[in-house]
Amino acid sequence: MRFASHMDRALDQARAAADRGEVPVGAVLVGPGGVLAVAGNRTRELNDPTAHAEMLVIRAACAALGQERLTGCDLYVTLEPCAMCAAAIAAARIGRLYYGADDPKSGGVAHGARVFAHPQAHHAPEIYDGIAAEASAALLRAFFAERRGPPR
Amino acid sequence: MRFASHMDRALDQARAAADRGEVPVGAVLVGPGGVLAVAGNRTRELNDPTAHAEMLVIRAACAALGQERLTGCDLYVTLEPCAMCAAAIAAARIGRLYYGADDPKSGGVAHGARVFAHPQAHHAPEIYDGIAAEASAALLRAFFAERRGPPR
Repeated sequence: MRFASHMDRALDQARAAADRGEVPVGAVLVGPGGVLAVAGNRTRELNDPTAHAEMLVIRAACAALGQERLTGCDLYVTLEPCAMCAAAIAAARIGRLYYGADDPKSGGVAHGARVFAHPQAHHAPEIYDGIAAEASAALLRAFFAERRGPPR
Repeated sequence: MRFASHMDRALDQARAAADRGEVPVGAVLVGPGGVLAVAGNRTRELNDPTAHAEMLVIRAACAALGQERLTGCDLYVTLEPCAMCAAAIAAARIGRLYYGADDPKSGGVAHGARVFAHPQAHHAPEIYDGIAAEASAALLRAFFAERRGPPR
């Protein structure tokens, strides 16, 4: 199933991010002709607080296509996007957003700023949530448990 | 007055953006030791919907300092930040945000998503609005009036 395989690839990117010491979130940007970009979170490596997986695939896909908008494209991401990424998704006019785990702590789609719920977003994608949510959440739990170390 | 001169410099960046055919918004990022980065909007030139002036100065300042956070730094921007930029300001832990014109149509600070009003933002800067607001708004009005052309 195409749908599941794109999210599997996003999960691979999340795992690779964890291996680099980054919060494990991965994203895949798919256009009508196929995959345009894949990325994992690289905020630490790049010293860039904006280098979330979603931002990296949006920027890479726009660069590849030579255009500012990704109308008709789909974004797969393992975690609910934050407000920054949600607003970038709106600005890029992405058609469909598929995401994994909910993020009550930092999410900006179903929580907090709820970016797409306001007319200032100008565009809202179709949203499909909970895709491979448990696999995504397990990666995040393992990452943060390891960083906290064993209980003292 | 330091305060006014930084916003003047942001306005210069907005004017330069208009000259490049970009929506005229400019930003200046100031650290304890002085100006770290200046930029105008470059979304068209870079084919990058995330290349707002605020994002460009945040990324440039973080790269210059080799760090992910801009604690104790001030951001001057000629227009109310959108939700994307507001969330990036929070992620970068910027100390003070000075902005010019209000943006009821696309703003994400005092309008719409009101990014800093939710705990998911994790950090909110001190906010000073309305700085050189009329000069900033006049630049935007002139830019859009010219693009619409003379009345038919």
